[in-house]
Amino acid sequence: MVIVAAVDRSDRADTVIKQAKVLAEAFADTIHVVHVLSTSEFVNLGRTKAKEGDPIDMESVKNVASNISEEAAEPLSRPFEAVGLMGNPSDEIVNYADEQDARYIVVAGRKRSPTGKAIFGSVNQSILLNSECPVVMSTDN
Amino acid sequence: MVIVAAVDRSDRADTVIKQAKVLAEAFADTIHVVHVLSTSEFVNLGRTKAKEGDPIDMESVKNVASNISEEAAEPLSRPFEAVGLMGNPSDEIVNYADEQDARYIVVAGRKRSPTGKAIFGSVNQSILLNSECPVVMSTDN
Repeated sequence: MVIVAAVDRSDRADTVIKQAKVLAEAFADTIHVVHVLSTSEFVNLGRTKAKEGDPIDMESVKNVASNISEEAAEPLSRPFEAVGLMGNPSDEIVNYADEQDARYIVVAGRKRSPTGKAIFGSVNQSILLNSECPVVMSTDN
Repeated sequence: MVIVAAVDRSDRADTVIKQAKVLAEAFADTIHVVHVLSTSEFVNLGRTKAKEGDPIDMESVKNVASNISEEAAEPLSRPFEAVGLMGNPSDEIVNYADEQDARYIVVAGRKRSPTGKAIFGSVNQSILLNSECPVVMSTDN
């Protein structure tokens, strides 16, 4: 089966990759490292790479997302698949896991608000609330 | 290592037990089924079992909690430990997992609000935000 490692561009992606590896080894599963390029990232990309009015090359956008997955997965010694998607991050990840009939989705753990309070990221919260498969929230440990 | 299955008295405990079993088999771990008797449950217990002013028998309170764990764990074919605790449910579970150096805490997944919206239970939300070890949120699947 597939373990979906949902990574963003923060350093919290490391804990997701580590936890996905632990699970993939225990279950002899395959890791799919998934990054979703959100609309805002996409807009930034469009601004730097294309002039206004240029047609959107969806394939190259997905390639960028998949490169981010690949970078995050670097510490993995075992084979993995780097997957790039585009759209609403939590929807895309939940749907992808569903399509793959994934065993788990691994997400990053809590983060700290500017005042030091432990909070969920909004993407992770939405994945936890909407996933059809169990979700593993990784920690630094 | 230890897999902590955090069970309440709802039928969602079943999905927690099932998921704990999957993990315990993959990692060759031991399952500790933990129920925490909250202050309100404790008060109800006191009302039905003792007259006002009677001394509180902590041992018997913990026994009640551990009986609830044992009941929830009934579908398990493998050995488990039934653990009864008393106090703030999320604090007690997080501390217990920490003491045991648990591999995972398994909690029940989302539930539905009276209006049908997917929500976390407040205990689970607090466990997710405070646990030192990874938390697995089980689903019906």
